[in-house]
Amino acid sequence: MKPLDRILLAHGGGGALSGALIKEFFLPAFDNPALATLSDAAVLSLPPGPFAFTTDSYVVTPRFFPGGDIGTLAIAGTVNDLAVSGAVPRFLSCSMILEEGLPLDDLRRVVDSMARTAAEAGVQVVTGDTKVVERGEADGIFITTAGVGELRPLPEGWGTPLPGDHVLINGPVGDHGFAVLAAREGLMFETRLQSDCAPLNALIDTLFDPALHIRFMRDATRGGLAAVLNELAAGHDWGVALRAGAIPVSPSVRSLSEILGIDPLFVANEGKVVMVVSPADTSAALESMRSHPLGREATVIGTIECGLHGLVTIDTDLGGRRILDMPLGEQLPRIC
Amino acid sequence: MKPLDRILLAHGGGGALSGALIKEFFLPAFDNPALATLSDAAVLSLPPGPFAFTTDSYVVTPRFFPGGDIGTLAIAGTVNDLAVSGAVPRFLSCSMILEEGLPLDDLRRVVDSMARTAAEAGVQVVTGDTKVVERGEADGIFITTAGVGELRPLPEGWGTPLPGDHVLINGPVGDHGFAVLAAREGLMFETRLQSDCAPLNALIDTLFDPALHIRFMRDATRGGLAAVLNELAAGHDWGVALRAGAIPVSPSVRSLSEILGIDPLFVANEGKVVMVVSPADTSAALESMRSHPLGREATVIGTIECGLHGLVTIDTDLGGRRILDMPLGEQLPRIC
Repeated sequence: MKPLDRILLAHGGGGALSGALIKEFFLPAFDNPALATLSDAAVLSLPPGPFAFTTDSYVVTPRFFPGGDIGTLAIAGTVNDLAVSGAVPRFLSCSMILEEGLPLDDLRRVVDSMARTAAEAGVQVVTGDTKVVERGEADGIFITTAGVGELRPLPEGWGTPLPGDHVLINGPVGDHGFAVLAAREGLMFETRLQSDCAPLNALIDTLFDPALHIRFMRDATRGGLAAVLNELAAGHDWGVALRAGAIPVSPSVRSLSEILGIDPLFVANEGKVVMVVSPADTSAALESMRSHPLGREATVIGTIECGLHGLVTIDTDLGGRRILDMPLGEQLPRIC
Repeated sequence: MKPLDRILLAHGGGGALSGALIKEFFLPAFDNPALATLSDAAVLSLPPGPFAFTTDSYVVTPRFFPGGDIGTLAIAGTVNDLAVSGAVPRFLSCSMILEEGLPLDDLRRVVDSMARTAAEAGVQVVTGDTKVVERGEADGIFITTAGVGELRPLPEGWGTPLPGDHVLINGPVGDHGFAVLAAREGLMFETRLQSDCAPLNALIDTLFDPALHIRFMRDATRGGLAAVLNELAAGHDWGVALRAGAIPVSPSVRSLSEILGIDPLFVANEGKVVMVVSPADTSAALESMRSHPLGREATVIGTIECGLHGLVTIDTDLGGRRILDMPLGEQLPRIC
């Protein structure tokens, strides 16, 4: 029999071919004792105390892009959702929906990326599932990960930004969205543009110092910086006042955004964390972040301001102020 | 503006329309404090000790079928994976991949089924995600749930069936697979045939009695009874000897299976648990199951037998014995 090079419907049937897929692809890549039992559920332990639980589906197209792929994203995205919640990411699940005909080489590359990213983040993929749907009924590969992590003791003031607080970010915005878009549209001239897709838990670790009082933290994914700050401000008396000149944007993203007419503030990031800290802690927070490779360009981009009634504003370099609205949808579908 | 009646790409963009979907559909249906925070991860607690973690994707077509829908399945399937692992199901995540153009009425019906099934099973849906892909790039609605449950103290001998042990099931096999197939193919003459899709955790609760020694328990989903028993026996000196006449099959399933030439032993169930118990405990286990509405037809279907070297055999009523192989794939794709 000719060795298989593509996904068949039977790979998702729960029979011998499903078993082969697990044994040849998933077990060696994610190698750990909980997964190795191949039971219906992984048996795990965490220290006593509260834990965090999250999930995301990943449908990015194309599935490979400069700086990462759907596998990198599926691990990093869920790790980051746990980390910004104040949890130490520990265990992930991985459920794949594959399209009949998907090249097995593509699957192998994605699984290898997942394994590499999980190792980098220090998490284990302990349980999973694979379904296969007929050709034309899914686009190649969709991955859903869920994650569990132990919650740290959270700093005093966590969850309650105050007027006067500073808004910080760990680096330039828009890289992920524009890198995926460039790959999708074949805009190959932007050779230096790479997704920022990365697990941020080690960077975030540096900020959970008892001397630092982080008051809010979230990764700026779908909807970009605009969505995360609008969600933060909504319903409060205060708002967020950003300074346009302070928001880091790479030259590649800047030029693509001008050509395409897409504002980088609305574009998904996959390696950017936005946080709010008391002004007394700003320099320590910046120093902590800059000590980590993923935080070298950490900077202050704005302040929490009284009387903005839930709005996010942006002050231009020429002295104007405009409102940065919540995006209605996503300017770039299937970006993550 | 005309009220929306279908899913748009922007519903998955992380902006205002994503927020509306969460507030109008998910929050009211799954109403619980952990979900209500709408943070990146739910903050939860379990008693100290080991816990179980599992995930499954659901891609069944059609999305509505007699006896349930993809929403019922997405809750019951993950609850059952936790329950057969010896865990008390507690918290579920729900991640949806929706196709642009999906009628919002369909989504509402599915979410309502999920809420109803979660309430029936006593679990909370505490975190979630929604992605939307372009028309033609997914088939309507795919749901991935992950679940966390606290592990009970497991009975002595759990995980180690012995020759002479009895194999039990809680009722007839094949109902789910044939009900979905009949709905898919428009075989409407089988009006009494319904999926057995149901959360089994309450039934399984009755079996975690200190006096009972359950040695193995698994739900017989994809690949049916044949797959679960072949997985059980693989690699052992012993095997599983089934008695054909003892395996309950409903008259509707029997006649459909004859017409279509599909063996019900290979067909997915979504409300059937197979277990192995010491003969000394068989009558108590049957009595426990029969005390629950989902176990009324519980019965012994075979025994663990020496010298079968990992095989599953089936003894016919005429005295013959044949091997029941591991299915290669699934005879019925997209059955769950």
